[in-house]
Amino acid sequence: MHHFEELSTSFIERFNVPHFPSHPASLYEPADYFLGLGGKRIRPVLSLMGNELFGEIDPDAWLLANAVEIFHNFTLIHDDIMDKAPLRRGKPTVHEKYGSSTALLTGDVMMVAAYDYISRMQPPHIRPIMQIFNQAAKQVCEGQQLDMDFETTERVGLDEYLSMIELKTSVLLAASLQMGAVLGGAGLGNQQHLYNFGKALGLAFQVQDDYLDCFGDPAKFGKQVGGDIVAGKKTFLLIRTLEVATAAQHRQIKELEQADPVSKVTGMLQLFKACGVDGWARELKEKYMQASYQHLEDIAVLARRKEPLRELAAFLVQREY
Amino acid sequence: MHHFEELSTSFIERFNVPHFPSHPASLYEPADYFLGLGGKRIRPVLSLMGNELFGEIDPDAWLLANAVEIFHNFTLIHDDIMDKAPLRRGKPTVHEKYGSSTALLTGDVMMVAAYDYISRMQPPHIRPIMQIFNQAAKQVCEGQQLDMDFETTERVGLDEYLSMIELKTSVLLAASLQMGAVLGGAGLGNQQHLYNFGKALGLAFQVQDDYLDCFGDPAKFGKQVGGDIVAGKKTFLLIRTLEVATAAQHRQIKELEQADPVSKVTGMLQLFKACGVDGWARELKEKYMQASYQHLEDIAVLARRKEPLRELAAFLVQREY
Repeated sequence: MHHFEELSTSFIERFNVPHFPSHPASLYEPADYFLGLGGKRIRPVLSLMGNELFGEIDPDAWLLANAVEIFHNFTLIHDDIMDKAPLRRGKPTVHEKYGSSTALLTGDVMMVAAYDYISRMQPPHIRPIMQIFNQAAKQVCEGQQLDMDFETTERVGLDEYLSMIELKTSVLLAASLQMGAVLGGAGLGNQQHLYNFGKALGLAFQVQDDYLDCFGDPAKFGKQVGGDIVAGKKTFLLIRTLEVATAAQHRQIKELEQADPVSKVTGMLQLFKACGVDGWARELKEKYMQASYQHLEDIAVLARRKEPLRELAAFLVQREY
Repeated sequence: MHHFEELSTSFIERFNVPHFPSHPASLYEPADYFLGLGGKRIRPVLSLMGNELFGEIDPDAWLLANAVEIFHNFTLIHDDIMDKAPLRRGKPTVHEKYGSSTALLTGDVMMVAAYDYISRMQPPHIRPIMQIFNQAAKQVCEGQQLDMDFETTERVGLDEYLSMIELKTSVLLAASLQMGAVLGGAGLGNQQHLYNFGKALGLAFQVQDDYLDCFGDPAKFGKQVGGDIVAGKKTFLLIRTLEVATAAQHRQIKELEQADPVSKVTGMLQLFKACGVDGWARELKEKYMQASYQHLEDIAVLARRKEPLRELAAFLVQREY
């Protein structure tokens, strides 16, 4: 059994091979470029961990890991087009560097490449993996669409926002774990608990992300505090504040929308505290964290096999950066 | 055994069901809209015909037919974004009607939906179908990329152009037939002949398309003659002309690029004839047609089972509209 870091190192080593033919370079070079930007590679490692929870790592789990990582990168390339993002991991995005049409098409062919890895699995694995993968893939698209819809929606309810985050972020984490478990021969009950562990963990992670952006220690966080506020991004904190704010506070928020970035961050942080959403966010994270641990607990394998996943969960959600 | 029209009618009837959930409507309504625009549905019917060549239609062939048609429509939606096309079948394109981001995402989710139909097949069918499907899907992306690359390439060789058309158009026709054959239990040799029949037919079809645009009978053709010339599109006729034209003719072509549409069409048509590309195109079409018939001939099933495919081929390539 391996810890996250060990599997991450192994995956990165194995992933560092050509995934695409060389011709036409105008299509495939952008794909290589983007994969070369790196990333945390959380999803493929979750697949490996979900698999190892039930025994030795199955050779098909490495194919699955490639599939989920390439799929995830395809979604990032297309999201960057939609968001008109100039940078990703500090480097030019694919559409910035190669143009939008190529970015669109490179993303498309990467999605096919993800399915190609699935098609190389042992025949009995392919159908159950496809079913989980397709479901998650559709939900990721739905989440991205809802996220875009929310940009032009004045008031988004907490439940709607939660369901968007689940679709856009959590389900692929959850499915990565579950598909690993399927390859490990897990029964449906165990699969479901592992999926729900991943889903709750994804939500806890996102709450923590939103929280750190506002209340993180700048020395540890490494990013400018209040980035989401400046960008006008909808977050757990903002959505909750809009739900509980008084009429006067609502007017203040309206005014702050026109303010300069520094005043906007200071003003909104004060408002968040006045509305108690800092404590609320900590509790919410704790709630998802507990739900996640409970699902891990309920998986019927020896407790020591679960250690690496418990460790990872604690690390992801207790991190201060 | 059924003729193209019968299978086309059956397919259209069966295809006319909801393929997507209703929520979020902002993502799925554009997909329904686009599928509702209709189309010739050639690819799914080729899958059915490829299947029936070897026996009764397998229930999975209907799933395959849905998969290839939805995949094809996804490529059209994304192509329309890249080409900035305002209209498709006389109606606004998805990006015109719903915005580029939604068109991008709707296309993505349609690709997943295509794979979803494949995943519903009988388990032993899934892997071989996926392998052929993935190969064709990648090639379609490659063809579209080459087509875009050619827009900014001064001189494109006939071989390069041919290979682009093969990728962009022919391989999906060929793969649709072959996948049908796989579901019919065809051996590899028969599969290969059927694939090559489709590939050659696709090329013959494209040559005919380019030819009709220039030399079709306007009364039968239904479109303005010379549309490709006005649009400055690279076609078999133009590529060949650029290869055989004298220096003086090259200067004429350069001059015509600046001319008004009517003079451009008249001038280029004269040039095409002076270079003999009208006769050349008829011969080229004939060559592909013969290659295509030969492959059909070589498939080891009773001749009468091949009748519907032979009929369809003749219809597609001898059409004057």
